[in-house]
Amino acid sequence: MKIKLWFLGKKNEITDFEREMMKRIRFRCDFEMIPLSQAGINDASVAKRIESKKILNKISDQDFIVLFDERGDELNSIEFSKKLKNWLVTRGTVHFIIGGAHGHDENIRKRADILLRFGKMVWTRNLFRQMACEQIYRAMEIDAGSGFHKK
Amino acid sequence: MKIKLWFLGKKNEITDFEREMMKRIRFRCDFEMIPLSQAGINDASVAKRIESKKILNKISDQDFIVLFDERGDELNSIEFSKKLKNWLVTRGTVHFIIGGAHGHDENIRKRADILLRFGKMVWTRNLFRQMACEQIYRAMEIDAGSGFHKK
Repeated sequence: MKIKLWFLGKKNEITDFEREMMKRIRFRCDFEMIPLSQAGINDASVAKRIESKKILNKISDQDFIVLFDERGDELNSIEFSKKLKNWLVTRGTVHFIIGGAHGHDENIRKRADILLRFGKMVWTRNLFRQMACEQIYRAMEIDAGSGFHKK
Repeated sequence: MKIKLWFLGKKNEITDFEREMMKRIRFRCDFEMIPLSQAGINDASVAKRIESKKILNKISDQDFIVLFDERGDELNSIEFSKKLKNWLVTRGTVHFIIGGAHGHDENIRKRADILLRFGKMVWTRNLFRQMACEQIYRAMEIDAGSGFHKK
């Protein structure tokens, strides 16, 4: 079972908090954060197409894709934990993809298995990455019954 | 116009990101982050009552209180910006209060003007503080029409 978190940006943008989460998640599951360089193109729709192609080329057909999207569904932490466990067990590898400032290309939206969001607010991508790491970690701990999640 | 963000914890828990947000928010509005020491009491309901009393003693009757609560309402960033501006203009001082692990005391829930949450997920308080700072900053920038908020 493997989780990959794709984000537009550079490796050196990963914060200490994310490194700590990464370390903890890895006690439970194979976990990788993968930076994607931004297509240096002014035309947003062309840039998005290039970015999505780069990602899709590295993803197998049987893998599960969670696309973070402002039009996505919302889950609470317990629902998310149960679903993530299920995706991992049935599909083996789960990819989380955080888009760029211009959203996602249609190709990647079509291939995605679920669109997910964290509430109605808009978040900067650096903070969003930390939020995603925390919820993946929390999901692991809920599943393990470790007592980290108090509710 | 003044914003105060109350949180259970210590001053040294404030991250670089929050310090940066604080600096930026202060271009637009008086802003303070106020740590509250946790009542060192095992009984959760007694601890909550003591904590809420400490906060309420420092808040004037005309001030506006936003209580972060998992049973609260959700706003998108633009709605939040408009409302925050309105609260500041009509009430002068707006207090944001992030509760402890055991939630809020009934006294503070009753006094609060609005209960607010960021989505359905549960967040650790350190990350939640950063999320609150970002949304307050984003609200200021939306109101100022600075272009920081892309939507």
